[in-house]
Amino acid sequence: MFDPVEKLKEFIRHPSVSADSKFGEGMRGAQKFVADLLGSMGFDVEVVPTELHPIILASRGSDPSWPHVVIYGHYDVQPADPLNLWTTPAFEPSIRGNRIYGRGAADNKGPLITNIAAVARLLEANPNLPLRITFLIEGEEEMGSPSFPKFLERYKDRLKAADFVYLSDTALPNEQQVVLTCGLRGLTLFDVHITGAKGDLHSGLHGGVLRNPIQALAEIIATLHTPEGKVNVPGFYDDVLDVHPWERDELKKLGGDEKAYADFLGIDTFYTTPGFSPFESSRFQPTLEFNGIGGGYQGEGTKTVIPSKAFAKISCRLVPNQQPDKIKKLVMDAIRARTPKGVKLEFVDQHKGEAYVVVPPGRSNTPKEQSPVLARAFLAADKAIAEIWGRPPIYLREGGSVPIIADIKRVTGLDSVMFGLFLPEDNLHAPNESFNLDVMKKGIETTERMLGALAAGK
Amino acid sequence: MFDPVEKLKEFIRHPSVSADSKFGEGMRGAQKFVADLLGSMGFDVEVVPTELHPIILASRGSDPSWPHVVIYGHYDVQPADPLNLWTTPAFEPSIRGNRIYGRGAADNKGPLITNIAAVARLLEANPNLPLRITFLIEGEEEMGSPSFPKFLERYKDRLKAADFVYLSDTALPNEQQVVLTCGLRGLTLFDVHITGAKGDLHSGLHGGVLRNPIQALAEIIATLHTPEGKVNVPGFYDDVLDVHPWERDELKKLGGDEKAYADFLGIDTFYTTPGFSPFESSRFQPTLEFNGIGGGYQGEGTKTVIPSKAFAKISCRLVPNQQPDKIKKLVMDAIRARTPKGVKLEFVDQHKGEAYVVVPPGRSNTPKEQSPVLARAFLAADKAIAEIWGRPPIYLREGGSVPIIADIKRVTGLDSVMFGLFLPEDNLHAPNESFNLDVMKKGIETTERMLGALAAGK
Repeated sequence: MFDPVEKLKEFIRHPSVSADSKFGEGMRGAQKFVADLLGSMGFDVEVVPTELHPIILASRGSDPSWPHVVIYGHYDVQPADPLNLWTTPAFEPSIRGNRIYGRGAADNKGPLITNIAAVARLLEANPNLPLRITFLIEGEEEMGSPSFPKFLERYKDRLKAADFVYLSDTALPNEQQVVLTCGLRGLTLFDVHITGAKGDLHSGLHGGVLRNPIQALAEIIATLHTPEGKVNVPGFYDDVLDVHPWERDELKKLGGDEKAYADFLGIDTFYTTPGFSPFESSRFQPTLEFNGIGGGYQGEGTKTVIPSKAFAKISCRLVPNQQPDKIKKLVMDAIRARTPKGVKLEFVDQHKGEAYVVVPPGRSNTPKEQSPVLARAFLAADKAIAEIWGRPPIYLREGGSVPIIADIKRVTGLDSVMFGLFLPEDNLHAPNESFNLDVMKKGIETTERMLGALAAGK
Repeated sequence: MFDPVEKLKEFIRHPSVSADSKFGEGMRGAQKFVADLLGSMGFDVEVVPTELHPIILASRGSDPSWPHVVIYGHYDVQPADPLNLWTTPAFEPSIRGNRIYGRGAADNKGPLITNIAAVARLLEANPNLPLRITFLIEGEEEMGSPSFPKFLERYKDRLKAADFVYLSDTALPNEQQVVLTCGLRGLTLFDVHITGAKGDLHSGLHGGVLRNPIQALAEIIATLHTPEGKVNVPGFYDDVLDVHPWERDELKKLGGDEKAYADFLGIDTFYTTPGFSPFESSRFQPTLEFNGIGGGYQGEGTKTVIPSKAFAKISCRLVPNQQPDKIKKLVMDAIRARTPKGVKLEFVDQHKGEAYVVVPPGRSNTPKEQSPVLARAFLAADKAIAEIWGRPPIYLREGGSVPIIADIKRVTGLDSVMFGLFLPEDNLHAPNESFNLDVMKKGIETTERMLGALAAGK
């Protein structure tokens, strides 16, 4: 049996930034690392080529009477810049205290190694474990999984034969309290480009004559929220469903401390959808955010130009029942209608993803046709978590998005059990990303016990 | 008597980019070239060291009863990049048709050689010309003249003994119509920095909880103009003086074509101060412009962060009687008052410059205490221009800024006669800068005749 921490170090050392073609070697290295590791555990490994980064599909167990779990993960990571803000280099794993630092440590290399290690332990103890396991590890998650839909179409029959998906690519609110994530927000993203004059102009000779594209862009952006914090786009909230009482009750168990959350963020005032606490707002409500803005001179000192162009990057997080294409159209229509005269507007479409919701067994809105293996998996996870973490999990929707979860559900009918392992202080997508090694240890034990119980028919 | 075109070629060959320390040799070469040329014409040349690039001060004539003109110019040039857009190398002068190409050809080496050649011709014809002439040629104009204020303080008594300043560092609207520039806009510049959370955040986990600094910045920017095109800052226009009817009449003589101007800019709608045409707005009204904006992710594709920071670069062009410090304070106060809760605001101060106005003799607002020599200089220039160009000059304020002109006025009391020589097609500050040799020839004759008349007491 391998040492999970050493394996994680090795994994982090492959700089697998999927969005940047300069990291081709790192991507290939990370992919081969995962394929070899699963191969060494006795899995049949297939590396499925895509237009961009291959998907690893690795299986063991062939008895159709056994429960069948698909374990999802991704071997790609976010870009590591700004590099100068890292204490130790992003792709040289470093252990300080009970944490391992490095890009991808928490998203998703640490949690993925956790689940792989749990399976390795189970199989080492019982090579004939009556459980079919399929690892499905992609390399494009951080760029919106562009190759995933085609892959799904091609492999849907094989995947439909499984019972559910298990993954650890969601959050753990604190070291004491595990969450089984029951919902994810969807996404729709696009860029707005505003053009004024055909070239940059001298602000002395021509200042006071035309509308500056930065001003036009700011005027558009400023219309998109109400002062109270709602998205100010007609129809934006039309398809948002009411929150079930049990969901609010579960969230109460989290016992969120608003003061501590504000301190963690470094802000003195929240700005939420009216009527929702910060903890509710990010889970139950859609958003419209600005991820980037640019235009004109950005260097030191001054350059007195009226720039020709300015742009902003917009993303909406969507809740279940909101359709990404419909919301994108509503927002684009609003922007089009609010673009002032004298400038030209263009959109660059980016990716999108549907929201997802799964209801655990025994709730007011549990579907009657729920898969019995899925129901057993939830109960086994609940029990394993209660035993190992000292407290049963709570069942919450999360603010983040894993669009492929909704895609898998739509194409194959499979629901997902999401066992979150990254903590708020793990700095996902940011400098000094890290993963808590105590969490990793308990995570391995939990997955081992949960899958063991499932195999044992418990 | 030297050949002015050959001298201009020699001048251009010195790559005198003041802002880039790699061009030290070019700066020293250009400075020595000017000093030697003036020395060869019999001037007493003083090279005044500064913290950066020396100022050349060269004088002839000592009879205090003679009129005394200070001729201003600068021997430094803008950077020449992007170099690949030049048809012939930037620092190898090349004549094509009636134009000489090269960095600095029009700004300011061509116009400066024009005025030096005019003086050389006058002195060759009459070595005892009863005119005191002081050349004041700086080497930091293209970087905002940082050494100039100290120089002025040190030399103010010597400069006060003069009657007026003469320069050719403004524009000629077309080859038929000379403009004597009677006003320049001032400037005040600063950056606005907005900080939200203490680091970039995952827009899924935390979206819907806090105010995005890009949104806050856009909301601030969007308040700074009215939909009609006025700057929306209390008190901003308080000190703006009414435009005198003669100024509007002069501008009418320019016969600006709004359709042609819109086509030149590549826009379909103007956005001016209400009540002012585009040609009036850029000359007679102050502005508040956004020269740059930045924040969050600006690369290809998407990165779903809520950025911690966003910034904008703001510049105001000011008209006479508006004080840069007062306007800066008004705008900063408005921004402070309009910054929403939940974000932090910081300013980074940049440079500033006062607006300038000079009124030619015989106008409704000509100061009673106007220097008689200045008045004679305007009349001599008017006559010389009418004779040589076939049409008298028009007297216009310009939208651009030459802050040292206001500094000279404030410290020494001297007004300036600004005889513009560069055409819109000269590509100032851009690749393929050039200077029209027919304009140069007529410019030499004009300055020669004007200074000759002044010396002759006409």
